[in-house]
Amino acid sequence: METGFVGLGNMGLPMARNLLQAGHRLTVYNRTRGRAEELAKSGAQVASTPAAGCAHGVVMTVLSDDAAVESCVWGEGGILNALPKDGVHICLSTISTDLSRRLAEAHSARGQHFIAAPVFGRPAAAAAARLIVVAAGPPEAIERCRPLLEPLGRKVFVLGPDAPAAHTLKLAGNFLIASMLETLAEAFALLRKSNVDPAKLLEIVNGGLFQSPVYENYGRLMLEERFEPAGFALRLGLKDVRLVLRASETAAAPLPIASLIHDRLLSALARGQGDLDWSSLARVAAASAGLDR
Amino acid sequence: METGFVGLGNMGLPMARNLLQAGHRLTVYNRTRGRAEELAKSGAQVASTPAAGCAHGVVMTVLSDDAAVESCVWGEGGILNALPKDGVHICLSTISTDLSRRLAEAHSARGQHFIAAPVFGRPAAAAAARLIVVAAGPPEAIERCRPLLEPLGRKVFVLGPDAPAAHTLKLAGNFLIASMLETLAEAFALLRKSNVDPAKLLEIVNGGLFQSPVYENYGRLMLEERFEPAGFALRLGLKDVRLVLRASETAAAPLPIASLIHDRLLSALARGQGDLDWSSLARVAAASAGLDR
Amino acid sequence: METGFVGLGNMGLPMARNLLQAGHRLTVYNRTRGRAEELAKSGAQVASTPAAGCAHGVVMTVLSDDAAVESCVWGEGGILNALPKDGVHICLSTISTDLSRRLAEAHSARGQHFIAAPVFGRPAAAAAARLIVVAAGPPEAIERCRPLLEPLGRKVFVLGPDAPAAHTLKLAGNFLIASMLETLAEAFALLRKSNVDPAKLLEIVNGGLFQSPVYENYGRLMLEERFEPAGFALRLGLKDVRLVLRASETAAAPLPIASLIHDRLLSALARGQGDLDWSSLARVAAASAGLDR
Amino acid sequence: METGFVGLGNMGLPMARNLLQAGHRLTVYNRTRGRAEELAKSGAQVASTPAAGCAHGVVMTVLSDDAAVESCVWGEGGILNALPKDGVHICLSTISTDLSRRLAEAHSARGQHFIAAPVFGRPAAAAAARLIVVAAGPPEAIERCRPLLEPLGRKVFVLGPDAPAAHTLKLAGNFLIASMLETLAEAFALLRKSNVDPAKLLEIVNGGLFQSPVYENYGRLMLEERFEPAGFALRLGLKDVRLVLRASETAAAPLPIASLIHDRLLSALARGQGDLDWSSLARVAAASAGLDR
Repeated sequence: METGFVGLGNMGLPMARNLLQAGHRLTVYNRTRGRAEELAKSGAQVASTPAAGCAHGVVMTVLSDDAAVESCVWGEGGILNALPKDGVHICLSTISTDLSRRLAEAHSARGQHFIAAPVFGRPAAAAAARLIVVAAGPPEAIERCRPLLEPLGRKVFVLGPDAPAAHTLKLAGNFLIASMLETLAEAFALLRKSNVDPAKLLEIVNGGLFQSPVYENYGRLMLEERFEPAGFALRLGLKDVRLVLRASETAAAPLPIASLIHDRLLSALARGQGDLDWSSLARVAAASAGLDR
Repeated sequence: METGFVGLGNMGLPMARNLLQAGHRLTVYNRTRGRAEELAKSGAQVASTPAAGCAHGVVMTVLSDDAAVESCVWGEGGILNALPKDGVHICLSTISTDLSRRLAEAHSARGQHFIAAPVFGRPAAAAAARLIVVAAGPPEAIERCRPLLEPLGRKVFVLGPDAPAAHTLKLAGNFLIASMLETLAEAFALLRKSNVDPAKLLEIVNGGLFQSPVYENYGRLMLEERFEPAGFALRLGLKDVRLVLRASETAAAPLPIASLIHDRLLSALARGQGDLDWSSLARVAAASAGLDR
Repeated sequence: METGFVGLGNMGLPMARNLLQAGHRLTVYNRTRGRAEELAKSGAQVASTPAAGCAHGVVMTVLSDDAAVESCVWGEGGILNALPKDGVHICLSTISTDLSRRLAEAHSARGQHFIAAPVFGRPAAAAAARLIVVAAGPPEAIERCRPLLEPLGRKVFVLGPDAPAAHTLKLAGNFLIASMLETLAEAFALLRKSNVDPAKLLEIVNGGLFQSPVYENYGRLMLEERFEPAGFALRLGLKDVRLVLRASETAAAPLPIASLIHDRLLSALARGQGDLDWSSLARVAAASAGLDR
Repeated sequence: METGFVGLGNMGLPMARNLLQAGHRLTVYNRTRGRAEELAKSGAQVASTPAAGCAHGVVMTVLSDDAAVESCVWGEGGILNALPKDGVHICLSTISTDLSRRLAEAHSARGQHFIAAPVFGRPAAAAAARLIVVAAGPPEAIERCRPLLEPLGRKVFVLGPDAPAAHTLKLAGNFLIASMLETLAEAFALLRKSNVDPAKLLEIVNGGLFQSPVYENYGRLMLEERFEPAGFALRLGLKDVRLVLRASETAAAPLPIASLIHDRLLSALARGQGDLDWSSLARVAAASAGLDR
C-alpha cells in the first residue's frame, strides 16, 4: 500500500523500515529532515510537510507527545486539511485520551477515519517487529489498513469502534509497567538495606512465580544499573504517567498508585535523571533509603 | 524421616498430607484437635502439645502469625524446651523479620538450628505440591532436612545462612503481589469508568506483554468478582503488608507503595471484606471511583 | 478611578460592589448579563464585551478558571487588543502559574502591564471586604492601582515584580488549606471509630495549640456536616489542587501530599460531592473507614 | 501533695521542677540517677526504683515510649505491685492507645486508678508551665489529682472516664502537627524552586489567614534551618506517627496522610536526621526536589 508516515524518532524509524521491507511505499516526513533522508536509500519518498504524504488516503503518525500530534494535524501543512474524504489517519503515538477523542471527532467531521493504534514495546522490539499493536476505530478502516499494522509487531489487537479506548488501554498498560518498576525499586532498596541480595528476589519471585519477561528485563536493568542508553527515557515515562492521570481525571477514577509514581518520577527528573531509562526509578528509592545510589 | 508438624490450617494440612504421602512419619499438633484427627487416618501420630513432636529432632511449624509462633515456641509445652541439642526447627510460616531473628538467636543459644522456610503459593498449590520454598539457615541443617522440603513444592531455593533473609524475601515477594493487585484494581476501575472492557487489559497487556500466570489468575478473580471462598484472606494479606512495613522500619527503607496498599486493605477491612480474598481490593478502588461495586 | 471589571460570580460580584461603594466607576461585564444588570442599579455601566471596559486603561478580571481568562483576554472582544499602551490588567482569579506567565509576557509585549492579584477568602469575606490580596507585578502599576485593591480586603501584600509568583503563592496557600482539610477529615474518622468525640480534638488541639480561625471554621463545618451551600465548591478545590500540581510539575518539586489530596477530592467528585463545600472531604475519609457518612 | 515521679528526661525534669515549686513533695526516680540528684537540691527525695515513690498513693510517669512504661509498671520494682489499693497512676507519656488500654485494665484489676494525661508542648513550654494537659480516667481520681496537673500547664482538659481516649486524642493532635510540617516542607520546596521566597508564604498565609503560633514557630525553624538542638527529635516524631498508625489499625480507620509522613520521616532517619528536630522534614522535601539542602 501507499501511505504517508510522519515521525521518525526512536520508534518511528524502525517501524517505517519494517513497512518498507514489507513492500509498502512510504512518503515520510520528519521535523529534522536528516532522519528522513536516511530512509530515502531504502526507497522512501521524502516530504517537506505532513500533508505531502496524505494524497494516497492513508497517513500514519508516530510522534512523541500531544503537542507534536496537534501541530501535525491542525498546523500549517497539516494532515486534517490534506487528507481526502474517506482517508485514514492511523495514530501510533501514545497520546492523551482527550486528544484521541478530539482527533476522532475532527476527522469524522470531515468524512475521514481515525484509527488509534498505540503500540507496546521499546525501540528494540520495534526494530525486531515484535511490538504489540492495540487498534480501535471504524472497523472497515482497520481492516483496510491491517496490512500496514501487521508488519509492525507480533500481534494486532482490535479493541472496538471507539478510538480513544485504545489510548486509554495503552496508558493503563504503561501504568502497570510503571507500577512494577516502582515496586521493584522499593523492594530492592529494602533488600539491600536488609543485607539480602536483591537479585534473589528476581530469581525466586519472578522465576518461580510471576514468570514474566517484563519483570525479568526491567529487573535486570535495575540490578545492573544499566540506565544508559535509555530504552524508554524517564522523561517520557513521566509524560505517560501524566497522561494516565489525566485519563483518571476525565473518568473521575482515582489512581493513587499512579499519583505516587508521578511524584517519584518527578523527583528523578529533579535529580537529573530525565534522559536515563525510567527503570532508574531505582535510584530514587535507594536515595530515600539513605543509600548513595 | 520422623518430624513434628505444628499447625494444620489451610496451608498446613495439605503440606502435612504431602509429607505423609512422601513416606515421612509425622507427629502432628493443632490447637483445635479435630483437624489433627483427620490426619490420624493417614498414619500421623496426634500430639497434644507442640513439644510432643520434637523428640526425633525436627519440628516444622505452619502457623498463621507471629503470636501463634511465639506461643508454640516459648509457651508452655513449647518447642524451645523440647527440642534436643542439634535439633532443627523449620518455620514455614510467614512471620516478621524481627521474630525470625529472635528465633534464630534463641535456637542457636541452645545449640539448636533454625531454618526459615516460608513458602509462596495458595492452598491449591499446597495441595498440588506446587509451592515455592525459600529456605535460609545453617547449610548442614538445610541439607539434612531437604527431604522434608522437597515434597512440598516444585522448587526449593536456598538463600544462605542468615535465616531472617528468607522471611524478608518472602515479605518482599508478597509485597510484589499486593502491589500488582492494587494496580490492577485501580486500572480496572479506570477502564470501567472509561467504558473500556477491563478484561481487554488483561488479555492484551498480560497476554502480550507480562505473560504472567499471577496476573492472569488474580486478574480473573477480580474480573469475575470471585472473592469467596478466599484463596488468601484479605485479613492475612493485611497482616503480611504490615509485616513488610515493619521490615521497612527495621531496615530504614521506606516503602510508600506498601503504605498505600496497607491503607486500602485497611479500608477493605473496615468495609467488611476481611474474610474475602485479598483480590477484593478491586472493590475499594471501584468504590473510590464512585462505582457501586 | 475608572476601571473595567470582568466576572461577577460568587467572588466577583461582592468585590465589584465594594469598589462601587468606595467611589470607583466600574464598567462591568459578565457572560450571563443578568448579574451585570444587578450592578447597574448601583451605578455600574454594563458592557457587552470584556473589551468595552478597557478604554480607561485598567481592567480587573475575577474568573473561575484558566479557560475563562484565556477567552476574555485572547478571544473576540478580548482585553489584549482593547487595552491601551501602558494599560493595566489586574487578574484576581486563581489561575495556573503557567497562564500567569503567558499573560505577563503577552501584556508586556504590547507595552501593557499585568498585575497578578489573587485573593484569599470565601464569598462572605469578599462581601465583608475582609479578603487577603497578594499582588505581584510592575511596582509602579501596583502603586497606581492600589486604590482598586485596598477596598477589597483587610490587607494587600505586595510580593515583587514577577507576577506569576503571586499565583504560585496563592496556590501554595490553598494547598495548605486543602492539606488541613484532609488531615482533619482523617483524624475525625479515627476518633469517631475510636469512640472519642471529634469535637474534642478541635476544642483542645486548635483551642489550645493551633489557635487558628481556619481550623476552627472548617473544623466546625465538618463536625456539623454543613456542606451546603458551599462556601467553596469541592469542584473548585479540585481545580486548585490540580493547578498546584501543575506548578509542582513546572518547578520539578514533588508535592506528594497534594497528589494524595487530589485523589481524595476526585473520589469525592465521583461520589457526587462536586457542588458541596470542599470540607466534605470528611465524607471520603469516613467512607474509607467504613462509616456510613 | 506527696507523689512519686518517674522519668526526668527533657520533659519530665522541668515538669517535676514545677511541681516542687508549687509546693508538692516528690519522690523521684530516673534510670540514670544523675538527673534525679539534680532535683534533690530542690527538695526531692531520690528513689532507686519506680516502686519507691508509690507509697503515698500517687505516682506520675513521664517516659519516652511504650517499652519504658511497660518496664516501669510491670518490671521488677515496678509500679503495679507497689501502688496501694485506690492508688493512682498518672501517665503523662505519649504511648500507644493499646498500652493505655492495658494499663487501665491492669490497674483497675487491682483496685487502682489509671489516669491518662498526655501533654502537648515542647521542653520550653514544659519549663514555662505552658503545657496543655489532656486527662482521661476515673473522674474522682482526676479531681483528686488536679493539684498535680494544674501546675504543669496553662490548661487541663478533662476528656471523660475512658483513659485511652486521651492518648488517642494526643496522637491525633501530633498527627495534625506532623501533617502541617510535611505540608510546609513541600510548599517551601515548591516555592524555592519557583524562585519565590518561602518566608512570604508564612508571612502572608499564616499571618493573614491561619494566624497560628504553631505554623509560625515551626515555619521559622524550617526557614532558618534551626534543627539543632532538637525541640522534638525526629526519631520521637517517627515514634508518634507509628503510634497513630497503630491506633488507625486498631480502629480500622485509614490515615493515608500519616502513612505518607511516616515514610518521609523514615527517609529522614535513613539520611541521618534522627536526632535533628522533626521540622527537618524540610530537608527530605528539598532533596526530593533536587535541592542540595
